[in-house]
Amino acid sequence: MTIDVCLTPNDYLANPPAGDHAVAVLDIFRATTCMTTAFANGCRHFLPVRTIEEAQDLKKQYPDALLAGERGSRPIPGFDLGNSPGEYDRRTVAGKTIIMTTTNGTVALKTVERATKIYVGSFVNAAALCRTLSAAAMDIVILCAGTAGRLTLEDVLCAGLIAERLAGRADLSDAALTARALYNDCRADLRGRAGQGSHAKHLVAVGYAGDIDYCLRHDLYDVVPEFREGIIKDPAAQ
Amino acid sequence: MTIDVCLTPNDYLANPPAGDHAVAVLDIFRATTCMTTAFANGCRHFLPVRTIEEAQDLKKQYPDALLAGERGSRPIPGFDLGNSPGEYDRRTVAGKTIIMTTTNGTVALKTVERATKIYVGSFVNAAALCRTLSAAAMDIVILCAGTAGRLTLEDVLCAGLIAERLAGRADLSDAALTARALYNDCRADLRGRAGQGSHAKHLVAVGYAGDIDYCLRHDLYDVVPEFREGIIKDPAAQ
Repeated sequence: MTIDVCLTPNDYLANPPAGDHAVAVLDIFRATTCMTTAFANGCRHFLPVRTIEEAQDLKKQYPDALLAGERGSRPIPGFDLGNSPGEYDRRTVAGKTIIMTTTNGTVALKTVERATKIYVGSFVNAAALCRTLSAAAMDIVILCAGTAGRLTLEDVLCAGLIAERLAGRADLSDAALTARALYNDCRADLRGRAGQGSHAKHLVAVGYAGDIDYCLRHDLYDVVPEFREGIIKDPAAQ
Repeated sequence: MTIDVCLTPNDYLANPPAGDHAVAVLDIFRATTCMTTAFANGCRHFLPVRTIEEAQDLKKQYPDALLAGERGSRPIPGFDLGNSPGEYDRRTVAGKTIIMTTTNGTVALKTVERATKIYVGSFVNAAALCRTLSAAAMDIVILCAGTAGRLTLEDVLCAGLIAERLAGRADLSDAALTARALYNDCRADLRGRAGQGSHAKHLVAVGYAGDIDYCLRHDLYDVVPEFREGIIKDPAAQ
């Protein structure tokens, strides 16, 4: 078993794994943290789409669905939910289908559609994710969504946490060793170090500093959403 | 002034910097370490080319040149020099033009041909390189050659050393922060940690363990080769 980290979706596309593999998609600030939170609060499905127009078209098929997402970290006019995990509380999302389009996270999910297994990962479900990846018993690729084709620090930090926790059970690629070392160098002051990243600085500038603290909390939820045939579900809830 | 790290040549091509920028190309195991060593020992020029055939064609124009390079880390049959820095001693290279083709390093140099300034970097000339990059007074991109489109640990380690040393003078991108943290997490046992990387393991397997120790030594030489119009020279020697 091997653990690889793709630091951007392009890194995955340029080197697609040959055999069966399980992918964990991370977009820590904030799409995959929102999704994990929403499933912990009883949401039914996520339908990730690339564009605002696709989201609006899909809403016609699913009139009861909530429209969610962001552009430039800000809510999309006319949509029900933005990209702050605090919005995805039980009262709002329980039993709901959510159509979501975000700049990086939903694009990353679409990139890996042909992987054997695709999981939604974040700090808030990291322990459960590691158990699920171990149980899958196949090569693991941790895909960092990044932003605009570049890596973002917080995604690689979370990849490093996962690599650190799985290190005894699998061979780490050079990228996985890099992510693991990053996490270990930063773990004693994770908020401070993640705060040096471009994305954290941007979120602070546009008023979402509180989201950063939440998105870096470890192991809050025992849920691992799975993406399959265009739909994200919590397999344990079916 | 900003410092960015491109973890692979693809990472540079996918996000070409807009303005003036100085690039330091790193292929620690072993092309850029060989080049730096050769210039410290008085070589005149390097002519980097992509293919063995190009090297042989160029030899017809430069009959006194040495042919150098590797494929699969091994010397190329009929060539004068392989890719071990120990081969590039003063007796062999002083005053010589060297035509070189390596799997990753020469390809990386060709990738950045349009950058404003292009320098050859390695651990063995890291201090001199940092002085040169500071003096260039423009945005800095540290390009890791990687291997077959993926990052290699030792290149990112050296990028991290450079980022660490320049950190007070420039803003670090997320990739530069990642490389810096990797270096700081590994610096107390650089040989041991670099040895966990795929490329180091391969070099040990094919009999070049001694090269690894040499390639990780810091600041041996006060030379910063520059790549310009297809030719690598030591500007201080002209």
